[in-house]
Amino acid sequence: MNPAAPFAPRKTIEQVEEGHELAPKFDSQGLITAVTTDYGSGELLMVGYMNAEALRRTIDTGEAHYWSRSRQVLWHKGATSGNVQRVREVRLDCDADTILLLVDPAGPACHTGEVSCFYRAMTSNE
Amino acid sequence: MNPAAPFAPRKTIEQVEEGHELAPKFDSQGLITAVTTDYGSGELLMVGYMNAEALRRTIDTGEAHYWSRSRQVLWHKGATSGNVQRVREVRLDCDADTILLLVDPAGPACHTGEVSCFYRAMTSNE
Repeated sequence: MNPAAPFAPRKTIEQVEEGHELAPKFDSQGLITAVTTDYGSGELLMVGYMNAEALRRTIDTGEAHYWSRSRQVLWHKGATSGNVQRVREVRLDCDADTILLLVDPAGPACHTGEVSCFYRAMTSNE
Repeated sequence: MNPAAPFAPRKTIEQVEEGHELAPKFDSQGLITAVTTDYGSGELLMVGYMNAEALRRTIDTGEAHYWSRSRQVLWHKGATSGNVQRVREVRLDCDADTILLLVDPAGPACHTGEVSCFYRAMTSNE
């Protein structure tokens, strides 16, 4: 099965940059980067990866699904922890190789218990 | 040259999850995903990639540098357009394989002229 089959093929630059047709660009491993932010606050919560099935299930169920690269399984976020992410909007970037999910999170996004996975500052010039 | 040489090696789970030591995890192509948000508004602006040199120059100059995968060159964002991104903070995620840049952008992040590359909604449940 072509992993991108459920989605529209990429045709022209105009379609890729301006179209609202669903034409995500999966990489050579069949994955696309997914950035997840809090719908209410706008805070960046996590970065994950999706294959075509994860994206399809995210859209169909309204809850975020990812592909776990470490465990090599489809991952319904919150299925065990309860910290599901209710999807309010799915966006695609200009060159269609990154997904943005705007979500209402039921709990922390990070496996460490932090609200966001980005809790560590390496450098700061505030 | 080891592309990760300027940065600390990854040692333990504790160091990776809790340490403030700079131990980013570059992938097999020597790249790490970089998510860039607006320091003031928190808005997601773009997602790019960095090699070790791009990250080092970003930290040293205080302006965002990326690795252009399409052109295969180091890319000082705004060098030609003027739309530089002044870096206020660099963060690392829990498993140290994604960088977050909080920036003051001098202009649009997107090559299309949009403020953010994520200007297209694919689905919405607002």
